[in-house]
Order: sequence, then structure tokens, then C-alpha cells
Amino acid sequence: MASSSAAATQQAAGAGALDRLLTVTHDGMERVNALILKRAESHVDMVPKLARYLIEAGGKRLRPMLTVAAAQLFGRGTGAEINYAAAVEFMHNATLLHDDVVDESDLRRGRPAARMIWGNQASVLVGDFLLGQAFMMMVEAGDINALGVLSKAATIIAEGEVFQLAKARDLETTADDYGQVIHAKTATLFAAAAEVGAMAGGADAAGREALRVYGEELGLAFQLVDDVLDYRGEAGTLGKNTGDDLREGKMTLPVILALADANPAERDIIAAALGKDETPDGVMAQVVAIFNRHRSLDRTVEQADAHVRKARAALETLPASEMRTLLSDIADFYVGRAY
Amino acid sequence: MASSSAAATQQAAGAGALDRLLTVTHDGMERVNALILKRAESHVDMVPKLARYLIEAGGKRLRPMLTVAAAQLFGRGTGAEINYAAAVEFMHNATLLHDDVVDESDLRRGRPAARMIWGNQASVLVGDFLLGQAFMMMVEAGDINALGVLSKAATIIAEGEVFQLAKARDLETTADDYGQVIHAKTATLFAAAAEVGAMAGGADAAGREALRVYGEELGLAFQLVDDVLDYRGEAGTLGKNTGDDLREGKMTLPVILALADANPAERDIIAAALGKDETPDGVMAQVVAIFNRHRSLDRTVEQADAHVRKARAALETLPASEMRTLLSDIADFYVGRAY
Repeated sequence: MASSSAAATQQAAGAGALDRLLTVTHDGMERVNALILKRAESHVDMVPKLARYLIEAGGKRLRPMLTVAAAQLFGRGTGAEINYAAAVEFMHNATLLHDDVVDESDLRRGRPAARMIWGNQASVLVGDFLLGQAFMMMVEAGDINALGVLSKAATIIAEGEVFQLAKARDLETTADDYGQVIHAKTATLFAAAAEVGAMAGGADAAGREALRVYGEELGLAFQLVDDVLDYRGEAGTLGKNTGDDLREGKMTLPVILALADANPAERDIIAAALGKDETPDGVMAQVVAIFNRHRSLDRTVEQADAHVRKARAALETLPASEMRTLLSDIADFYVGRAY
Repeated sequence: MASSSAAATQQAAGAGALDRLLTVTHDGMERVNALILKRAESHVDMVPKLARYLIEAGGKRLRPMLTVAAAQLFGRGTGAEINYAAAVEFMHNATLLHDDVVDESDLRRGRPAARMIWGNQASVLVGDFLLGQAFMMMVEAGDINALGVLSKAATIIAEGEVFQLAKARDLETTADDYGQVIHAKTATLFAAAAEVGAMAGGADAAGREALRVYGEELGLAFQLVDDVLDYRGEAGTLGKNTGDDLREGKMTLPVILALADANPAERDIIAAALGKDETPDGVMAQVVAIFNRHRSLDRTVEQADAHVRKARAALETLPASEMRTLLSDIADFYVGRAY
């Protein structure tokens, strides 16, 4: 694990890179945001209300920004990247709507989840609407190969979500199972977002593959950090409570690593809290203490670090440029969040 | 309304046409069925289990058969119609899975709904998987225009489902609102199924449009009849109970027409039963008696008949052929079910 001062330097560099990336992709992202709002419209009132509630709560729009940045990296944006970026964001938001129904989540991005306001039914159906719109925008961009990348991603994401559901509360879940889940549910969309951006930018096969790998490794790092923050974050910063994953029975790497090394008493404490909505914060503090005793959070961050290195390595096959440096540096920002 | 002997003749002719259509599309449908089973596979156990449970319960596969028949009508099936037909069936099944979650249905096709066995969560996610696979199969067929037709259909279907949800239990729902709902949630997929079949068969623009209109009108007739059968069918034949739509609060045309003509006492009886899961069969019999008093079921069938005539008229713009006659005649079969 990096020393804390090295980590601080890494995070500061990453944050600076993120600011610069926001600046250089600003024009493209303005067009993406306008398209997102336009395509969330419908003569059925509830559709834009629910969609906008979720979309405008925002987050950093990392996935569509990845698409726009990848297109710019290869120099000639054809305009298709705007459609792909909006489509990627719609696919992501459709997944969030369905996830919140599946997980019975109360909060999302620091606000009540859409299902708490409009109900599970509308969340399922508006998710379907966003997915349909995502495919329409891809079709309008006109490249069937990019459609192939994104439709395959949609399938793998859903398959990964089912796998995660099947593994919920399963104490025998392995690190390999977990790797499959995060590869499917997170890394696949990051990889697709970067790959179709590269395609829109006119990348050759090698460039396309480099961006695919970059996105995939970045996505894996991102999810590992997210799973650490579930136990380390201050309540509210992620719009959820510390330990929500455990309460929902999600077998993430910190739990899996801790269970592998835990003594029987520790194992019992974790098992008793797993999948129990009503687990009190005091018990959750005990669980986190067990995690710390076995360094399961730190070891998860170390794995995220390894994926960041692979993401950076993938970019090094490409000619040096300002954008390449930015993409390389923002990877650190996401892992930096975990320190 | 047709006299009962004329109706019987009409239904017999329709049933004969359906048998012949099953025969002439047999080879294509064998390929479609094989593809459906293959594409429902996954390394995640729960996916094929749940998908096959629903898919194998079957029904007549009218939508994919429409795609195959439309391709054959224009003479040269390119093979793309097999992918489109399987994609259309996957889209349909994804919708059913999500609908059953939204409607909290217990039964589907005469068996417990998938959600009763695997849960709402898996039903949502496997629906997403089927939708993803549907798009992958379309991409593999390689025609971006057909993808445009089907992705637009997916969007309109979801939008229509949200509209139906918004109108549930709303006594002010108009016949025009209902027309919008069934156009979106049923006619759009029938229209798309027929249109992409025509495209795969090499139809010109006029042929493609004729099949689109044929599918659309057939779909409207089909849904109107379905909504009548909800009140007229014997329990079990549709895998649901008489009056389920009313219990779910669905404002279908028979209810809307009856409410428009009902006296205050009748209106109160209907309003009290609407959206009440526990409405006893005795009350439902009273509701049906009110419908009959105002001929709301018969008038709904008459509207279905009008759509069948439009469906047949659309085909008449095309050169006469055995397949054209079959497609024309099966339209009657679907309305015949309602007598």
C-alpha cells in the first residue's frame, strides 16, 4: 500500500487531471447533456419527471466523459461520440433504476431513490424506456459495430447482475466470483464507453483495443474503490450509509477477504450482519474493525491500484499526447478516493 | 356485429388458415426456436432456468411467426428473419417479465409467473438480459434500418406501459387514452415484427409499409380481443382469472365504454371493484352484467373487427399469393376467439 503522503500526492495529481479533463471535454459534454435532456422527453409526463430526477442528481458523468475524451484522443470526433456518450449514460441510469428496485435501496446519489417517489413499477418501466432510447441514439449514429459493442455490454451487465443476485448472502462466494461480478456489472460499461468513443474518433483496431482495456481496468479499479468506500466513506458522501452493501447481502471483496482470514467468532459476527437490513451501526463498527484487523479494505485498495497500473499501461501503446496524459492521470483520482 | 353463425364460419376459416400458416412457416420457426433456446443460455444458472420456464410455456409464437411469414411473403428470406423473429420473441418475453412485476401478477400462461418462483428481482434482471440478447441478434443480422425499427418499438412499448400505469384506476380515462396504450404496448411490436420480416424478405418501401400497417392493425385487434376475453374467457384458458384486468385497475375499452353509459349505481359498482385485488367473483359477475347491459364487450369486438378489415386491406395493395391469403385469413382467427 502507498504511504499516506504518497497517496495524498497521487490523489492531488488525479484531482488536477480531472479538472483539466472536464475543461477539455467541456464542449462535447455540453452537447451530450443537451442530448440527454432532449431524449428523456416524452408525452407521458412521468417519464421525463422520473428520468430527470435521476439524471440531474448527476454524479460526475465519468462514463460519457470517457466516451467523449476517447474520441478526442484520436483526433477527429465525427459527432457519433455525442450519441454514444448519451447512450452510455442512459444505459447506466437504466441499470441504476433497476438496481434500486432489485436492492430495495432507499437512497441514490444522496437523495431518495426514484422508486421511493414514483414506485418500483415506474422505475422498472422508465429504465426500459431509457434503454430503448439508448439503442435509438446508437442507431442514429449509424455504426453497427458500435451497436455490437454496446448491445453486448447490455447483455453482460444484466447477466452479471443476476449472478450477483444469485451470490447474495452466500458465504462461500470466492474472490473469483466477485471478479466476475464487477467485471460484468461495472468494467464492461466503462470498457464499452471508451471503446465506442475511440471508434467515433477514428481509432484503428489497436487504438480501439487499447481504449477498451483502459476502460475495463479503470472500471475494475473504480468498483473496487466503491466497495471500499461503502465501509470507509462518511455517511452521505455517496448518498448511502456505511455498510449498506453488507446489509443488502452483497459479497464484495472486503467481506470475502475478511471471511477467508477470520476466526470463528469474527466469522459469526460478519455472517449475522450479512443481508440484515436492521444491522445497527454499532455492529457495523465491529465488522469494520474485523476488516481492519485483516487489512481487507487496504488489500482491496491495493488490487484497485494494480488495475490502475494496467489501465495506464494500456494507454502507453499509443502516441504521447496531452489527452493521453490526462486519461492516465485521472485513473489515480478514482483510487485516491479510497485513502 | 356479425351473426353467431357468420362468426362461427369466420372463426373456422381463421383456424384453418392458422394451421396452414404453421405448416408453411414450419422450417423457419424450427430455426427460430433453436436460436431462442441457444440465446437463452448463460453461465449464470438462473438465467436459462427462468428464461426457458417462460419461453417454453409458449403460446403460439404469433409475433415471430409473423416475422417469418412476412419474409416468405416477399420470396427471398435472407436468413436475417430468423434473428429478427427470435429478437422479437425475446423483446416480448422481456416485456412479460417486467409486466408481471409491475402488475404483481401471480399467473402467466396458465402457470405461476416466473416472479412467483425466482422473485421480482430476477424477473427484472433476466428481462434486461433478454432485451440485451435481442439487440445482439439484431446486430448480427447486420441491417441497421431493422435495428432502427426494433429499437424504436422497444422505446414506444416502455413509454406505453408507463402511460398505462399512470392511467391505472383513473375513471376519467378516455377511449382515446386506451387507444394510445394498446397502440404502444401491443400494436407497435406486431407492426415491427411484420415490418422487419418484410425487410429481411427483400420488400420494397411499399411492401414494407403494407406489412407494417398489417401488423399494427392486427395487433390492435389482438389486444382488443384479449381485453374482451379477460371478462369472457373461462378461467384457466388464458392462464388468468376472469376480471383480472379490473382487479389490477386496468382501464381497458370494455370498462371505459361501460362507464360512459352507466347510471350512478352501476358506476359505483364498477368503481368499487376497480383495482381491488380481493373483488369476489360474485361482484365480478355483476360488473360483467353491467357490461352486457351496455354492450361494452360486443362493441369492443366490433372495433376489433374494424381493425381486422384494415389489416386485410393493407395486404390487398400487394400481389395476390397463397401467403397473402393466409395472412389475411389468420386475422379473423384472432377476432373469432372473442365470440
